[in-house]
Amino acid sequence: MTPGSARRLGPAVVLLSGGMDSATCLAVAAAREPPVHALTVLYGQRHAREVAAARALARRFRVARHVVLRLPLGPLLDSALTRSDRAVPARAAARGQIPPTYVPARNTILLSVALGYAESQHLSAIYLGANAIDYSGYPDCRPEYLREFERLARLATRTGVEDGRTIRVRAPLLSMSKAEIVREGERLGVPWELTWSCYLGGRRPCGRCASCRLREKGFREAGVRDPTRVRP
Amino acid sequence: MTPGSARRLGPAVVLLSGGMDSATCLAVAAAREPPVHALTVLYGQRHAREVAAARALARRFRVARHVVLRLPLGPLLDSALTRSDRAVPARAAARGQIPPTYVPARNTILLSVALGYAESQHLSAIYLGANAIDYSGYPDCRPEYLREFERLARLATRTGVEDGRTIRVRAPLLSMSKAEIVREGERLGVPWELTWSCYLGGRRPCGRCASCRLREKGFREAGVRDPTRVRP
Repeated sequence: MTPGSARRLGPAVVLLSGGMDSATCLAVAAAREPPVHALTVLYGQRHAREVAAARALARRFRVARHVVLRLPLGPLLDSALTRSDRAVPARAAARGQIPPTYVPARNTILLSVALGYAESQHLSAIYLGANAIDYSGYPDCRPEYLREFERLARLATRTGVEDGRTIRVRAPLLSMSKAEIVREGERLGVPWELTWSCYLGGRRPCGRCASCRLREKGFREAGVRDPTRVRP
Repeated sequence: MTPGSARRLGPAVVLLSGGMDSATCLAVAAAREPPVHALTVLYGQRHAREVAAARALARRFRVARHVVLRLPLGPLLDSALTRSDRAVPARAAARGQIPPTYVPARNTILLSVALGYAESQHLSAIYLGANAIDYSGYPDCRPEYLREFERLARLATRTGVEDGRTIRVRAPLLSMSKAEIVREGERLGVPWELTWSCYLGGRRPCGRCASCRLREKGFREAGVRDPTRVRP
């Protein structure tokens, strides 16, 4: 028996961007296995406005610890979300196409940092708000990708190799529509007024970018009023 | 045909720490597919002294671009290499044991950042100086781990999904002994005087830490004089 195997793995860390999906994911994780940790990674995206949202949400859900990490990756990663010379599109990409808001290796970077944190803190799982339905263009939001990352995590870590435990990757929203996410968030008391979805970093959501439109559609279909909505 | 598939993938990026292994790896990559890019990631390790070495090596091998990236991960990752309250061991760990210098998810973090960079720059491969022989305690230096990361990279990226190309993970030193690495470096003209292996960040190598000892053993067995060696 190795020293590591005596350690009991505690609860989970949630990747928290501050958007409606990660807020709902935090609510799910906090209900399932409290107290959770939250990890917000700023990778140079333009919507840094989300951080204030993430901090408020972490407080509301009484996380055990909220880590905000600034990784100066923006200039290295070619994406409309990290570079100011690229336009953020107003519509979601056509089905089967990867949209220009795709950030190369984004979820792999986020998950690997969360993996290092989870192992260091002896946590048993990583939660993320990935969603493969309404925004299906991102390759690193697909179930087969997430399963593959979990396999990698087992090979990569002391936890996996010496202790024979797997740090799980949980994506509870993976197969929900945006409307289903709104309903799940309602059920769990997500304070929508604290969340931020807009791709632009203004004082109020623009209401026009792909992310704002998708949010609006979700609330409308769920029959729920979005408190952040600017126009009637 | 998608726009991405028309792009020809260029050469490789090399993860360059400034140690003797990554220097030799850079020499191999620069000989095989010039001109290469170099990526040095500072993740809060104590041996930040390696950066100066990395810069000098990048210049010597005339890399197309050298990116130095500071990721403030040190306080989050539990390791003798990232925390000042943990002793760096003087000996290599016993066979089959993971040493305390193991950094949780280190290679997964480094490779995922390199993957995002490689995809953004349309590069075809990531080189790293991982070695599974003389320092076999790290789970994320094993061939099965590296193969798994390559599989993940194919699922994670636009390059893999839309273009059907794989960004390869190349670890040319993987099955070499330390002495063989010294011989390969000699053959390719690695300027050993520019490399830095010591785990401590002093003005000169300590000569006593596990990394210094392993380096000394490699040079001795290869019958090559190490110009950085302090004691006769």
